[in-house]
Amino acid sequence: MINVAILGFGVVGSGAAEVLSDNAAIIEKNLGCAVTVKRILDLREFPDSPFGHLVTHDFQDILSDKDISVVAEMMGGSHPAYDFTKACLEAGKHVVTSNKEVVARFGAELLELAAKNGVRYLFEASVGGGIPVIRPMVNDLASNKIERVDGILNGTTNYILTRMIHAGATFEEALLEAQQKGYAERNPAADVEGLDAARKIVILAALSFGTLLSPDEIHCEGITKLTLADVAVAKRLSCSVKLIGHTELVDGRVLAMVSPRLVPLSHPLSGISDVFNGVLVDANMVGEVMFYGQGAGKLPTASAVVADIIDIVAHMHSDNVRTPKFTVATAADYADFSAYACRSCVSFVNEEGAAEKIAAAFGAVETVVEGDRIAFISAEMTEKAAEAAIAATGLTLASRIRMLG
Amino acid sequence: MINVAILGFGVVGSGAAEVLSDNAAIIEKNLGCAVTVKRILDLREFPDSPFGHLVTHDFQDILSDKDISVVAEMMGGSHPAYDFTKACLEAGKHVVTSNKEVVARFGAELLELAAKNGVRYLFEASVGGGIPVIRPMVNDLASNKIERVDGILNGTTNYILTRMIHAGATFEEALLEAQQKGYAERNPAADVEGLDAARKIVILAALSFGTLLSPDEIHCEGITKLTLADVAVAKRLSCSVKLIGHTELVDGRVLAMVSPRLVPLSHPLSGISDVFNGVLVDANMVGEVMFYGQGAGKLPTASAVVADIIDIVAHMHSDNVRTPKFTVATAADYADFSAYACRSCVSFVNEEGAAEKIAAAFGAVETVVEGDRIAFISAEMTEKAAEAAIAATGLTLASRIRMLG
Repeated sequence: MINVAILGFGVVGSGAAEVLSDNAAIIEKNLGCAVTVKRILDLREFPDSPFGHLVTHDFQDILSDKDISVVAEMMGGSHPAYDFTKACLEAGKHVVTSNKEVVARFGAELLELAAKNGVRYLFEASVGGGIPVIRPMVNDLASNKIERVDGILNGTTNYILTRMIHAGATFEEALLEAQQKGYAERNPAADVEGLDAARKIVILAALSFGTLLSPDEIHCEGITKLTLADVAVAKRLSCSVKLIGHTELVDGRVLAMVSPRLVPLSHPLSGISDVFNGVLVDANMVGEVMFYGQGAGKLPTASAVVADIIDIVAHMHSDNVRTPKFTVATAADYADFSAYACRSCVSFVNEEGAAEKIAAAFGAVETVVEGDRIAFISAEMTEKAAEAAIAATGLTLASRIRMLG
Repeated sequence: MINVAILGFGVVGSGAAEVLSDNAAIIEKNLGCAVTVKRILDLREFPDSPFGHLVTHDFQDILSDKDISVVAEMMGGSHPAYDFTKACLEAGKHVVTSNKEVVARFGAELLELAAKNGVRYLFEASVGGGIPVIRPMVNDLASNKIERVDGILNGTTNYILTRMIHAGATFEEALLEAQQKGYAERNPAADVEGLDAARKIVILAALSFGTLLSPDEIHCEGITKLTLADVAVAKRLSCSVKLIGHTELVDGRVLAMVSPRLVPLSHPLSGISDVFNGVLVDANMVGEVMFYGQGAGKLPTASAVVADIIDIVAHMHSDNVRTPKFTVATAADYADFSAYACRSCVSFVNEEGAAEKIAAAFGAVETVVEGDRIAFISAEMTEKAAEAAIAATGLTLASRIRMLG
């Protein structure tokens, strides 16, 4: 029997206890060994929970317990989650986590520390909630060079965009709905400004290209400026609008970014609605593969945490385990964002002669007039070139939204 | 260094050699050890291939070579692939395969034989080509009870249906196109009659529910009877038509089946076009997850074969490996198909009073008239009840296509 400790008995933490308990028979059958929650760390008491008697307020109770070999950290936030993780790894305990903030900031260091102590640090639940994506990238795409990843990585913003596209709700109305349904927090900044997606895309970039960029140092645009006029232009061009985390190599350096993108309706990411997430990986042998499912939520996220626990238990006595490996990025690892090139949907306030001015600055493009806007999809241009061409038109820019692919 | 032998140097076999060679540096970096093709078994000579000098016509050259620890079987067909696989496992060699025919017929026996000989038998490439689906089901969903799997498992038929839906091609025209593009074989029966998908769904059913049904014993309908009138009715009902492999438990027994289904446009499987495949797994904790990508083709399929080789090499000295486990189904494991219940899209030749006759037999349903047909989506009914209600109308049945979900 393997004893596990849970750090943080919030939504995901209580979900993990529930998965381990409700599916105990399946887990034992699949694994050939039972997995039991021995202690739970939380500041609160849970007198009504069937796991309430396992709660301690003292981290030392877990750290010093030799019977606990795996610790599942689901506290959220950087501290003390990072500090506790470090202490557990140093004490020779395996750690699994759903905490994308800790992985995005300290993942490289914690992986190294784990390796040094002969234990593992796994974080399947940190990206895509319950969707299997990190382990498939590490295991199933191990024979591939990964070329590019594009993901809908945040369920809150995808819900808001779905409501804007399909129900004609404004951003503010859709956000309010999302808050009422419990999909968005009272302070939704981390979601709607793109930071949550930025944390996830730097993790995916690290898995793809070997270095962990800082989520604070990458280009990150949220969805707060998107309007129904943007949605209308997108529809006119047979596209939906999605918040996309994107990573690829540019001149041999790692580009990771988060921004709204127009996604053609024929693209597999375009149909991903509501709070669902999807991660599309383009790799040199397998081509495009996509992983889809619930990117958040109690039981889906807990399912991924428990999958990591099972992975650890299954390979506890193995001398060769498949664990993600990456290092901290140095300044030289960051791609020059101004050199990144893509197509964009550019919308100007329409005026007499606008089409000619657009043609003069952007060359032959097909313009559409939608409401008071004139819009078109540009050729592939660098950020710099796109900005220069926009300025050269002399027109009033309504919005510029990059295209996917 | 690990030496691998390839059995069958056709499309996938030569692809595997290419993946191992072209991505050798990545594989060695990910694995910490080089993987090299030592011998290739084929009846033909390949004087122009860079691997031509490795070809032997004698299986004994591989079987008796103690340096070869992993054998990748990509011959296709049951024999001699099954016999060679057996011999390799008995000789203590690990075997990986893309051969769904062998896995669907002999998988349970070969898994048992592998376990007895302390080696592994892996078959990621047998379902969904390059898409990671078997390993994610075994590893990432190990904390879940799998409830249901629905998959677009055959690229040829999905290409044909895509052309019927989007280009208005008839079945015969679309099949001809598929043959011209190399997506369909000259004798397309195994694809268009559903047998290929049947082999894959019994494998997925075995992974989900633990017993391997015979692909010959399950309900299997292909797409040869589908017409553009069916497609028009589907569109009218905001659905696409897909060939779906489906498995679930019915009264505690395993139901696996292949048939065309109407898929609502809002469903993630509906947007999967052309030769792409998608597998949607519904599990009790994670909910719905979908795996999407190229379900066939040289390099995608080879990518999955090589992922299995890497999995084996990584865990070669491990005492606890995560390998699929299932047994041969007995008669008692098969669900009673006539007790399976789902909604259906029923189309009759329209005639005066048809709506009243439908209402009398099916209760309150919303009918639509499309061309010379009158169609509707029934309530959930068993196969038996649906047939009885159809007969009770006294109308001429044009088609009955089950609904997904």
